[in-house]
Amino acid sequence: MEGLRLPRTQRRQQILAAAAQAFAETGFHGTSLADVATRVGVSQPGLLHHYPNKQALILAVLEERDEEDSRHLEETFREADPSVVDWLMALCEKNATQPELVQLFTVTAAESLDPAHPAHEFFQRRYRRIRQAVATRVELDQQKGRIDPTLVPTDLASELIALMDGLQLQWLMRPPVDMCAILRRRLERLTAAAGVAARQGGARSDA
Amino acid sequence: MEGLRLPRTQRRQQILAAAAQAFAETGFHGTSLADVATRVGVSQPGLLHHYPNKQALILAVLEERDEEDSRHLEETFREADPSVVDWLMALCEKNATQPELVQLFTVTAAESLDPAHPAHEFFQRRYRRIRQAVATRVELDQQKGRIDPTLVPTDLASELIALMDGLQLQWLMRPPVDMCAILRRRLERLTAAAGVAARQGGARSDA
Repeated sequence: MEGLRLPRTQRRQQILAAAAQAFAETGFHGTSLADVATRVGVSQPGLLHHYPNKQALILAVLEERDEEDSRHLEETFREADPSVVDWLMALCEKNATQPELVQLFTVTAAESLDPAHPAHEFFQRRYRRIRQAVATRVELDQQKGRIDPTLVPTDLASELIALMDGLQLQWLMRPPVDMCAILRRRLERLTAAAGVAARQGGARSDA
Repeated sequence: MEGLRLPRTQRRQQILAAAAQAFAETGFHGTSLADVATRVGVSQPGLLHHYPNKQALILAVLEERDEEDSRHLEETFREADPSVVDWLMALCEKNATQPELVQLFTVTAAESLDPAHPAHEFFQRRYRRIRQAVATRVELDQQKGRIDPTLVPTDLASELIALMDGLQLQWLMRPPVDMCAILRRRLERLTAAAGVAARQGGARSDA
């Protein structure tokens, strides 16, 4: 097969892309290694040479995409000090360009609620990590007077992550919802409210 | 089999409950009619007598639960005129008592993004219907001065539904997030903001 001559890294990238698409369409349980091998155009032993089983394959897909997102955020805000608004909008706008990957995470996060799912612990760790990262940005914004300081950072983080996850689901459905526009308006109201609260001498308005 | 002596309606309820659990755990593609039959303790032909295929079974489970939610809301607010806060909190508190059903809807909504999924159209119709129902309540609340009238009702509806969906996902993960407490605080800030806006002569604060 022509494809077998590809360098190792390139072949793995090709496998991960095909696997991402398969898992997004039919979920973990509904996808077989044979499906993925067919999409890539390699034999099943050829696929197993790179990833020994379906579990290793889905974890590799998920970890690779998270690392890619981290690199993107780091490059976008290299020297800057982004607010939580900048930070979440950068993620949203990146997501808006890759519906198949957003679908992969939406489907796999839901499926992984089953404790027997191979990505169960991955998603638990991921949600804890993301909530902490957003809460840290919220705290910085509160110190700078950009967000009402009476709000609990971890609760607001849970709320904003939930909003993004839920908007992604609606956006992926047809007709799609403009997730980034709705998210931006919500975030702008959040920071505008901090200004209102400050002008009222600390009375909480909203956020 | 002892079970075969159950009246038809009771047997169907038993099948729907077992199917809900199976679909929530392993998704549509990962669940077989044989799994469901085993959970109920009937033969596969016995199951097919009630539901001719897996597609009919999952649609019956989903429709039955939505009808049950509608009945619950109607009974809760029979003579009253609930605000969108009352209405969404009643749904949230009902959901908080039935994690396995919330998981079923979370998993199936995500899976159904695949156009080939049997519940694809069901969820598209369902999201349109729910968004319209929430937008209608938002408009009524705006007319009564409970919500900032400058907000677009369908956008706010998308935002609140997204928030509920996303909080459900975090709540179903361990350690769980207190979804109804976070939702209530968000909704209370939404209505408090209408009061702030009104006192400021219509200046938008938040919502």
